[in-house]
Amino acid sequence: MDQSEFGSRSDDVTVLMLRADDSAQMRHALSLAERGWGQTAPNPMVGAVVVQGGKIVGEGFHVRYGADHAEVDALNAAGDRARGATLYVNLEPCNHHGQTPPCTESIIRAGIRRVVVALPDPNPLASGGIAMLRSAGLDVVVGIEMNRAIELNAPFLNRFAARRPWVTLKLAMTVDGAIADFDGGSNWITGEESRAEVHRMRAGSDAVAVGMRTLISDNPRLSARTAPLPRRQPARIIFGRGKAMPSHSHIMQTAHEVPTYLVTYEEDAATLQTLRRAGVEVIEAADLRESLAQIRERGIDSLLVEGGAGLAAEFIERGFVDRLVIFQAPMLLGSGSLTAFSGLNTRRLVNAMRLEVMKRQTFGPDQMTVYAFPAP
Amino acid sequence: MDQSEFGSRSDDVTVLMLRADDSAQMRHALSLAERGWGQTAPNPMVGAVVVQGGKIVGEGFHVRYGADHAEVDALNAAGDRARGATLYVNLEPCNHHGQTPPCTESIIRAGIRRVVVALPDPNPLASGGIAMLRSAGLDVVVGIEMNRAIELNAPFLNRFAARRPWVTLKLAMTVDGAIADFDGGSNWITGEESRAEVHRMRAGSDAVAVGMRTLISDNPRLSARTAPLPRRQPARIIFGRGKAMPSHSHIMQTAHEVPTYLVTYEEDAATLQTLRRAGVEVIEAADLRESLAQIRERGIDSLLVEGGAGLAAEFIERGFVDRLVIFQAPMLLGSGSLTAFSGLNTRRLVNAMRLEVMKRQTFGPDQMTVYAFPAP
Repeated sequence: MDQSEFGSRSDDVTVLMLRADDSAQMRHALSLAERGWGQTAPNPMVGAVVVQGGKIVGEGFHVRYGADHAEVDALNAAGDRARGATLYVNLEPCNHHGQTPPCTESIIRAGIRRVVVALPDPNPLASGGIAMLRSAGLDVVVGIEMNRAIELNAPFLNRFAARRPWVTLKLAMTVDGAIADFDGGSNWITGEESRAEVHRMRAGSDAVAVGMRTLISDNPRLSARTAPLPRRQPARIIFGRGKAMPSHSHIMQTAHEVPTYLVTYEEDAATLQTLRRAGVEVIEAADLRESLAQIRERGIDSLLVEGGAGLAAEFIERGFVDRLVIFQAPMLLGSGSLTAFSGLNTRRLVNAMRLEVMKRQTFGPDQMTVYAFPAP
Repeated sequence: MDQSEFGSRSDDVTVLMLRADDSAQMRHALSLAERGWGQTAPNPMVGAVVVQGGKIVGEGFHVRYGADHAEVDALNAAGDRARGATLYVNLEPCNHHGQTPPCTESIIRAGIRRVVVALPDPNPLASGGIAMLRSAGLDVVVGIEMNRAIELNAPFLNRFAARRPWVTLKLAMTVDGAIADFDGGSNWITGEESRAEVHRMRAGSDAVAVGMRTLISDNPRLSARTAPLPRRQPARIIFGRGKAMPSHSHIMQTAHEVPTYLVTYEEDAATLQTLRRAGVEVIEAADLRESLAQIRERGIDSLLVEGGAGLAAEFIERGFVDRLVIFQAPMLLGSGSLTAFSGLNTRRLVNAMRLEVMKRQTFGPDQMTVYAFPAP
């Protein structure tokens, strides 16, 4: 997912219509949108700000799936002060009767004079809002802070562009690239600040995936322990063979409470029955591409892959990683450790897999870096 | 080298004497000091600021070995405005007749009322300045921005504390820890901004060291190509066997122009003679500790080790690395690459070698991180 997919709309950005504070107000709308993190899926996160004479007179965000749209929330807060004001919103206002009336109607009725939108809505059901507002005589600017808006709702946007979920691969490693010591020990390489951020990432994901070896050696819960909790705990997806599933693992013990999938192939009938009784849904697929298509069909738009090295390498080599998130802890574990990328094919320097740095942030002593893979 | 070595002087910091802008002015003095980078060794880098009524009325720095001390430079710039003013200087003013008269005399004569010092001078020949200024009735504050002052002149301070040079290990690697591809290719993993920073690091080092395999496979020049050039190009130190020295390498071809050492053991007479004729001085030592002591005896206070993996591991395992500087480029080279820490002993997570992050900085697409090793 990159900006070029929206290139055909770039003529919507009319430089003459821009104002000095447009970017700052849109970034504020984006920060409001992010307050819906973990609560809005399958809806996108949306924030809105009403500005009158350079002052914010109302703001709002999509608080939770099923709640008011951000625009309506902000217009309600502004009341009469919305008349003649500018509305900033990070996604094109909807133009259809869904769970709520069309936002375009509310905007026009409130007397908004100018609307600044970060991103057109890729949902064919919801789009048309910009055209409607213009035909009603409002000034509409599109494309302000578009890259940030794309990044915030990447899984939502990806839904209309790909047959697979938006995939984030997260790895916690040492300076020398170890994700576990020679004996499999990995609790904990990173500090509590990093681990809290991973819980936040899980809260924003529809599902979390690990390989069988990680399930067995770490016995993870894969849950999002955040405040507030996500509206739904992420589903758990295990890649491996049915007979290897450890029945006393946290995942198996809670498989009746949170959707749990095993991605495998050609299991025998007895194994399938055992898994189903335990609450595990089996996805049988010939390869990773087909597995991801089946996962997507189950309504999973965003997938957080947490390792181990084998699963990470397969996702990377097949080109199925949209964002690689590395938490690097300031320690060395030496040779013989399990390294994060040990399963990757070897490459000459001239053919190195080059990544793009999207974000860097420190969490306690650790460094988080978010990388994007260039389009293949 | 850490602050605790100066702990006995901490009673010099009198909180009541501090002013709101002391830290900011001292950081300015430190930034002036750094303008002498590569020009002052074996002297430290020193900067000085004269402040009168909250305004800077004079500033200066030690421009080059043999030039005026920073205090004198700043006092000359301030002229009469130094009367009653505060002088900020990152190292204790000298109290002895060396190449220049004692700075304490100049400070007292200029009418300075208050002196703020970051760090006492560890040089027994030069110290005593603080006591002298106090006995002359000036207010003296010591310890402002001491950590930054220590970091800036670490090799100088280390000279009075250790028998070996201050050692910085620099490694340029990929996200998956490769310092070269499976075929030895490493030109270039990092971008030009990072490489320019490495040249700056070389300019601030008395010597640069590499292992024999790096010399053979990369044929590096190991020179500081900076503007301005350093006062002296760093000496080159090769760790390896005499017979392996490639006579057509850049290093061997210029060994009569820039001091060049081979650290080895038990070479035969013919090899020794060949090396000496080529301009290479041979250091024979039983182990790394003894090698470093001999290097130090040749007036080398700061050593930049640039790899490869074998030499890096030996320095780390022996506890001889003061700062580990990693330039990490956003690329993956996959399995089979030469990894930076492949020679380190393996450790369990509970016994991991934990590092302290001293600094992070981006250079173009790359991330530089400076780590310190905890005291053994």
